[in-house]
Amino acid sequence: MMRDENCIFCRIIGGEIPSNTIYEDDDYKVILDNGPATKGHALILPKEHYRNFYDIPEELATGALKLAKKLMVRMTDVLKADGFHILQNNNEAADQSVFHYHMHLVPRYRGDQGLLSYKPLPVTKEELAALKEELTER
Amino acid sequence: MMRDENCIFCRIIGGEIPSNTIYEDDDYKVILDNGPATKGHALILPKEHYRNFYDIPEELATGALKLAKKLMVRMTDVLKADGFHILQNNNEAADQSVFHYHMHLVPRYRGDQGLLSYKPLPVTKEELAALKEELTER
Repeated sequence: MMRDENCIFCRIIGGEIPSNTIYEDDDYKVILDNGPATKGHALILPKEHYRNFYDIPEELATGALKLAKKLMVRMTDVLKADGFHILQNNNEAADQSVFHYHMHLVPRYRGDQGLLSYKPLPVTKEELAALKEELTER
Repeated sequence: MMRDENCIFCRIIGGEIPSNTIYEDDDYKVILDNGPATKGHALILPKEHYRNFYDIPEELATGALKLAKKLMVRMTDVLKADGFHILQNNNEAADQSVFHYHMHLVPRYRGDQGLLSYKPLPVTKEELAALKEELTER
């Protein structure tokens, strides 16, 4: 199993750093986030070290999503949440702060502080159409 | 195929409402968001109508994630993005505004307006430990 001695998540997975683990199996450990956006904010960590979605094997990522579904359903019930975000950040420019692939499970409650904040960019129909051309595979 | 005549995404998928489609296959259509958080913000829409992650079949959700990886890699290259969010919102309390399952692909660029905004909740070790007990399956 790939492991990075300098990675805080690898050390949590190895048990050298304590964590609040709410689920564990052979491939994943799920911990509560110490700086939660909302009550119950948790992180799915594959035990093997990969930097992020750019380099993790496909089956480990889809396995994390299957686990996310099960945990979302249970957490929604136990926490009486009103909604849920599944979020996964890649690279520093996208707010990734620990460079070990992880998927955020963020329960939401009516009236909570929220998670997302952005104003739609001003964009013209022509700009969108040009972008479509640029992004469509030929 | 399940379809909801009142669903704007079903009507986009059916071609009755125009969209900027950047990818399409038998199961998915990927369109540019008309109110993008950042340049290239796109949405993966399964063609079949499901409300969200609570009710979509597992294989359609994991298929969307596999497609997200391919598109993220290509979009990062074409757009020269510095990072990427994979985001999926469920229920109004979690900022879902169209009730047809969709996965957000959000490219990020250094210095852009961002997507996330929250302050970590003040939480004690004891509160986290109690939450862990509550959420761990017995």
